[in-house]
Amino acid sequence: MNPTAQAAPPSATPGTASPPPRLVVIGGGFAGLWAVRALAREPIAITLVDRANHHLFQPLLYQVATAGLSAPDIAAPLRHILRAQANVDVRLAEVTGIDLGARRVRLGGGGSGGSADDTLAYDVLLVASGAAHAYFGRDDWAAHAPGLKTLDDALTIRRRVLTAFERAEAAAASGDAAGRDAWLHFAVVGGGPTGVELAGTLAEIAHHTLKREFRHIDPSRARVRLVEAGPAVLASFPPPLQAKARAQLERLGVEVVTGTPVGGIDADGYRLGGRHHDCRTVLWAAGVAASPLGAMLAATPAAGSGSPAIELDRAGRVKVRPDLSLPGHPEVFVAGDLASLVQPDGRPVPGIAPAAKQMGRHVAHVLRARLAGRPAGSAGPFVYRDYGNLATIGRMAAVVDLRGLRISGLLAWWFWLAAHVFFLIGFRNRLLVLLNWAWAYWTYQRHARIVHGGAADKDV
Amino acid sequence: MNPTAQAAPPSATPGTASPPPRLVVIGGGFAGLWAVRALAREPIAITLVDRANHHLFQPLLYQVATAGLSAPDIAAPLRHILRAQANVDVRLAEVTGIDLGARRVRLGGGGSGGSADDTLAYDVLLVASGAAHAYFGRDDWAAHAPGLKTLDDALTIRRRVLTAFERAEAAAASGDAAGRDAWLHFAVVGGGPTGVELAGTLAEIAHHTLKREFRHIDPSRARVRLVEAGPAVLASFPPPLQAKARAQLERLGVEVVTGTPVGGIDADGYRLGGRHHDCRTVLWAAGVAASPLGAMLAATPAAGSGSPAIELDRAGRVKVRPDLSLPGHPEVFVAGDLASLVQPDGRPVPGIAPAAKQMGRHVAHVLRARLAGRPAGSAGPFVYRDYGNLATIGRMAAVVDLRGLRISGLLAWWFWLAAHVFFLIGFRNRLLVLLNWAWAYWTYQRHARIVHGGAADKDV
Repeated sequence: MNPTAQAAPPSATPGTASPPPRLVVIGGGFAGLWAVRALAREPIAITLVDRANHHLFQPLLYQVATAGLSAPDIAAPLRHILRAQANVDVRLAEVTGIDLGARRVRLGGGGSGGSADDTLAYDVLLVASGAAHAYFGRDDWAAHAPGLKTLDDALTIRRRVLTAFERAEAAAASGDAAGRDAWLHFAVVGGGPTGVELAGTLAEIAHHTLKREFRHIDPSRARVRLVEAGPAVLASFPPPLQAKARAQLERLGVEVVTGTPVGGIDADGYRLGGRHHDCRTVLWAAGVAASPLGAMLAATPAAGSGSPAIELDRAGRVKVRPDLSLPGHPEVFVAGDLASLVQPDGRPVPGIAPAAKQMGRHVAHVLRARLAGRPAGSAGPFVYRDYGNLATIGRMAAVVDLRGLRISGLLAWWFWLAAHVFFLIGFRNRLLVLLNWAWAYWTYQRHARIVHGGAADKDV
Repeated sequence: MNPTAQAAPPSATPGTASPPPRLVVIGGGFAGLWAVRALAREPIAITLVDRANHHLFQPLLYQVATAGLSAPDIAAPLRHILRAQANVDVRLAEVTGIDLGARRVRLGGGGSGGSADDTLAYDVLLVASGAAHAYFGRDDWAAHAPGLKTLDDALTIRRRVLTAFERAEAAAASGDAAGRDAWLHFAVVGGGPTGVELAGTLAEIAHHTLKREFRHIDPSRARVRLVEAGPAVLASFPPPLQAKARAQLERLGVEVVTGTPVGGIDADGYRLGGRHHDCRTVLWAAGVAASPLGAMLAATPAAGSGSPAIELDRAGRVKVRPDLSLPGHPEVFVAGDLASLVQPDGRPVPGIAPAAKQMGRHVAHVLRARLAGRPAGSAGPFVYRDYGNLATIGRMAAVVDLRGLRISGLLAWWFWLAAHVFFLIGFRNRLLVLLNWAWAYWTYQRHARIVHGGAADKDV
């Protein structure tokens, strides 16, 4: 039996009047959206389900968190992006269950419309629900150290950072030096790209943006600390660029601590190297865990005695076959941050936006081959094409690794900026984001320094 | 005894080394901010207290609610606006008490920093904490019909409006025609400027912005109803412009109902003319009540037997003396939407932004006269200079009443647009807001159609 042939829906045969095959895509991130767009001209009835109404340009999310951009600058309604693609139906809903046997997805909860027990039947399913931050089993840290994955996360971080300076000012005005120092201490846990971006930008805010705005504190005396358990920041970069990144961070005023894991996080601060540090703002950029839909898939009982089990890797990501389908379920694909795949050359596919886009397009490619009746496997295995690795550090500081060409500093920063503005979806966003940045660049100002939406975060 | 002379602080005498008089300003809206800025060169120690970190350009708040602008487009940090004004100290805090006898303001609660029982001593106090929406004693309506006063209010309305179309789509997809219609019914209660703006823009969203984006509903079949208890919309305009405004609303697709009060609002809809109407989105633009600080002032026991009582008007606003000071308390001023004043010609000062700015500047004028040692009353009574009355209705529709010159339609809309962009604070905001609007104008798109911050509003 050929499992991929079995998945080609009967209606794919040209010339028949049967309804088109139904593809349900869970998640409108890079993987899901790129798959949907690559299938624009195919005779498929696509339903794209997301619990948010927007596609988010996640690489710039840290700019929303640090008040450089407003939320709508880096997000666009999925419905609007796909308005001209007639074969797509967009649904704002939370997926609460996947029944691989009955081939149905259950919708419900927060974002869902209609009745709570809505279900969607599929012929082909793509699960691309991404990742969330994880606290390595220390979920009690979550309340004290917000992570950065969604727009709401970004606005929470923005609120806490901006409020911290206000609290420091109030503490100083009433003569409370210890309180002032605790509010002026910012710790970022995790030295990956997100942690580096956050720490570098926090230092810029403290040293430049807020200059002369306070009467009782000197914001430039804020302490910004980046804590990485591993030996260096930006683990995915070659060591010379790691060293350059560290030097650039230190030039911006960030205190970089490597080789030391954080021992605890509470309402008053964090533990590091056996000592407790008073700190009111700890940001979490250390752990990523796959979306809970991975565990939902893995909990499915094996279809028959010969059916291979669905396995998760250590981060909860779903181990997929080389064509990104699920073992034993050729009609189900997993792509993006939720997929775990080691390529033929032994290298794992990284959890970054370009890889997610490529995976989404690959799934579309496999489906097109099936629809055209080409033999299974003709689409080939997924291979990640690595065009380079970029990380920004702060104002005029970045590192770029383009397959051997390594640059850092101002040139790398311009390269990073050009690439990110280019990839932002939609003309309007590109143009206005560029203007916002040009303005911020010359003035050191950050136009989105507005605290709102605090109802969920009353303790701060 | 001359009460105004008594209020002139001793330190105002030039040449003495005594500390400058302390002015506490509560509220960074138009009245408070304009007063503070008008005192930039005076030897006064000003503390500006606000529970938000930003000044809000309230006349464009409906654009944030209807996804045309993002929150930072119409707000700027108070601290940033005042960074160069050395005699001002900005405090993010909630005022929890005013002690007129001891001349102290108590800070605490949500926005406050430092210890909970912070107090600020003053020599002169300006209370400019504005107004909030009121439900005429029907506070149970508040949960079902959000009003529009703060950025959080605007984002709540945006979330509910955008989600309503999503829910209608889901209901239609599952064959629930009644649910679809209830989600596609939008009612705006109150035909003042805010209600007219909201209704007109909702109609524009339904008829143009969302065109072709849904597969199961036709957004242009949404029903947008504006309900006004009085005989006409825009009560503050002359009748011919009221009629024009109504005609323009109807041309945009708004159903205008006048002369009929809403009888009830619940989770399923509203009552009107004895009938219940299924409607999932009711917006409240009907009632305004003064900030609770008015009641706090009025609760102060009269200082002596000869001291006049502090009275509130029907809307809870504080009745002030012609120079905007409090009866019996020449050292306390009330300005902006919280102040109730009938001018010498018998006309009340309207609760609009230009009047608030003028009141703020008048308080500064009175204080400058006192500091200069000029006789009490030399600053004269406050007189509102009425430069005209503008109201926008929607795309290319507005009414303008410039002391007899009455225009409506496209020309009025351009006039309104120019005036509002001009008055937005700060070059950056003006330029980018203009670009956003130019873009929205040509494309009918609204760039801020992003739902976020829903944690406080999980029922929707």
